[in-house]
Amino acid sequence: MTRVEIFGIDGIPEIQPGDDLVGLILTALEGCGVTLMANDVVVVTHKVVSKQEGRVVEIPTQDAYRALVEDESVSVLRRRGDLVIARTRHGFICANAAVDRSNVAEGYALLLPIDPDRSAHRIRTLISRSAGVEVGVVITDTFGRPWRRGLVDVAIGVSGISPILDLVGTTDTYGNVLNVTQVAVVDEIAAAADLVMGKASAIPVAIVRGLSLAGEGRAVDLVRPADEDLFR
Amino acid sequence: MTRVEIFGIDGIPEIQPGDDLVGLILTALEGCGVTLMANDVVVVTHKVVSKQEGRVVEIPTQDAYRALVEDESVSVLRRRGDLVIARTRHGFICANAAVDRSNVAEGYALLLPIDPDRSAHRIRTLISRSAGVEVGVVITDTFGRPWRRGLVDVAIGVSGISPILDLVGTTDTYGNVLNVTQVAVVDEIAAAADLVMGKASAIPVAIVRGLSLAGEGRAVDLVRPADEDLFR
Repeated sequence: MTRVEIFGIDGIPEIQPGDDLVGLILTALEGCGVTLMANDVVVVTHKVVSKQEGRVVEIPTQDAYRALVEDESVSVLRRRGDLVIARTRHGFICANAAVDRSNVAEGYALLLPIDPDRSAHRIRTLISRSAGVEVGVVITDTFGRPWRRGLVDVAIGVSGISPILDLVGTTDTYGNVLNVTQVAVVDEIAAAADLVMGKASAIPVAIVRGLSLAGEGRAVDLVRPADEDLFR
Repeated sequence: MTRVEIFGIDGIPEIQPGDDLVGLILTALEGCGVTLMANDVVVVTHKVVSKQEGRVVEIPTQDAYRALVEDESVSVLRRRGDLVIARTRHGFICANAAVDRSNVAEGYALLLPIDPDRSAHRIRTLISRSAGVEVGVVITDTFGRPWRRGLVDVAIGVSGISPILDLVGTTDTYGNVLNVTQVAVVDEIAAAADLVMGKASAIPVAIVRGLSLAGEGRAVDLVRPADEDLFR
């Protein structure tokens, strides 16, 4: 039997620009009775990372919001009413270029971190330094999908873990070489973590325990190159 | 602290048409020392369900395979070389209309169950009857996504659990009404389960424990209606 555990970590206060986010996470972990172990994956919703990094913008009017979405969009794929499906500077394709008006005071919006992979790396380094343990870090956001209703959490920043589990050349129990070769394992971790985080609750961090996925790579590596993408 | 556990259940033998799949799952659970509890979600890869239901087709040649993909496709969205992105009779949009040549003997292909929601319902009813416990059941397949590399598992059949967690009207800690209102929670469960299942390993079943999502609904409800879909 294989086993994975996911802990939703509460007790993290509202984050302000410049806060010691990792310190607050480690204190909350202690409060929850969770001691980090090697190979744990620390999953952090981007909202607290963005707040810590001061990625909060005032949007006094609906027009200011629209202008901000345009500004965050490198290209627009589709538009319907106020909904824009856009490509961000990072390469992510999502609703309203990831400009988010929830979990922030009225009249303000949250942007993604400028470089979420770097943010993940910074969090991992600080955890390693403070807690003396090598973990993976995944920063998440909530994206919609074409063709399927509902939203799921995906990885927008990664450190210490390979975003793609590459099974190229692996055979199944019949000896067939697998035609499913690349699993977006950090997106699966992000989705799993959301099961304990929730959207309305104050649980911005989850620990995923039981995987052995230490490796290198960036979440932007998950962006499908234009020449492979049939849906641009 | 919230907590979810995921158990990957090994010890399930190769499935033949007409096998007592639920009996084999329950025996394997016993072998793993896992006793089902109310609100557990039993996640089953469609491969074993399709085999049990005899959804195996001989494809002696590459042309026979291509013809089978066309036959399973209600409409084709994109085509590149041998890759077809197609809509199945169920409404799912995926590669090669979900015709699968892995995890089956060479010269054969697996199709999706005819009605995966009904298959899930049947499995749930048999578990309830044999084990005396009310669980949710999710049947999964592995899909690619536009714009993002790598594959993730999604729900193609559901019973005893609401596929969408609807947060309409819920407020965040700031009192804002959430703009993220519908979470595809069964897709998140499918993705989480894949973390313990793997693609090449003989772990076709996972138990997800710690959620309270009992409800009604079908996986086909996850198919975005054409008039809401900007990417047809």
